[in-house]
Amino acid sequence: MAPSQIDFWFTMGSTHSYLSVSRLSDVERSTGISFHWRPFHLLIILQEMKHVPFADKPAKLTYMWRDIERRAAMYGFPANLPAPYPAKQSIVANLIATVGMREGWGPEFVRAAYRRWFTLKQETGAEPNVSGSLRDIGQDPERVLTLAEAETTKAALEAETSAARDLGIFGSPTFVVDRELFWGDDRLNDAISWCRSGRVQYG
Amino acid sequence: MAPSQIDFWFTMGSTHSYLSVSRLSDVERSTGISFHWRPFHLLIILQEMKHVPFADKPAKLTYMWRDIERRAAMYGFPANLPAPYPAKQSIVANLIATVGMREGWGPEFVRAAYRRWFTLKQETGAEPNVSGSLRDIGQDPERVLTLAEAETTKAALEAETSAARDLGIFGSPTFVVDRELFWGDDRLNDAISWCRSGRVQYG
Repeated sequence: MAPSQIDFWFTMGSTHSYLSVSRLSDVERSTGISFHWRPFHLLIILQEMKHVPFADKPAKLTYMWRDIERRAAMYGFPANLPAPYPAKQSIVANLIATVGMREGWGPEFVRAAYRRWFTLKQETGAEPNVSGSLRDIGQDPERVLTLAEAETTKAALEAETSAARDLGIFGSPTFVVDRELFWGDDRLNDAISWCRSGRVQYG
Repeated sequence: MAPSQIDFWFTMGSTHSYLSVSRLSDVERSTGISFHWRPFHLLIILQEMKHVPFADKPAKLTYMWRDIERRAAMYGFPANLPAPYPAKQSIVANLIATVGMREGWGPEFVRAAYRRWFTLKQETGAEPNVSGSLRDIGQDPERVLTLAEAETTKAALEAETSAARDLGIFGSPTFVVDRELFWGDDRLNDAISWCRSGRVQYG
């Protein structure tokens, strides 16, 4: 039987992930496929690879924003670019997302934090984004931040980061169907196709 | 008036460019847009950026081949992977392509060289790929290699590489409409959309 779930691995310092974060609910409704949101801390894996995707590469960075701008417009998502980058405290956002996935409000928080990052230029993982995003979704910042800083949360995020590494993940977003990896918002259709038919098809 | 031409910037050491090289003639026929093939030597630009896209990143390299394999299957192109990589003498292939574009048989040579690289595991830019690909398309290897090594050809490739750098190009393939950049075979539809309507649209 074909799998009916796709794991959505993401890290909150990732810019292109904005597109996936913003459209996944609609995709879920239109396809009937459920997405399992799995925050991990990509920065650790990138540091192990000695890889800096954009920040030290001006031409690539310029292109990144332009590509996101054009594709956000295609999807009809607001974008006030460039957003602050790199997000130096993305680990805080990833820890909060980890708490949120456990408690059930994770995707809501992620969407709120990306909205503030990409429309209000509030750096993700930093204030006022963190407390503002939590208040936006009706969560108490003080309570959540205490949980986010707890050792159990740090251990949970580390475990997910290890699981991502073991799968061969090296970027965000990555969609995983069984053990098949699809990297990038632009491979979401490929992942859906794989989920349905075990191969990549047009459309 | 909308532009009716897209510049197709490519370098012959690039793996994902196989997909574009293989489908561009069909795309040209089906869209009525003409593609101007412009070989350049990306390696110089990557070295300036201190960027090694895949060769020192095992997880990313594994993924690269898998992604190309799935997408080649989607398009119906043959692929016997992994192909030899990196292509250490890609400059030779780029110089020959430069001669070929001048003389009119450039795209034919590029397709032949990619076919040998991706189906026969013959490294591009090296023998027997170079002479074999030239013979495949009815060109005399000795004559062409003499032209490829001429100072004028080297200067022409350098000039195109400088033009690519000035446009902000950092990868292959890159499609350019006026001065708008679209990087990757997976952005060809975006480039076509831009060419027709000045924005990126679905489909």
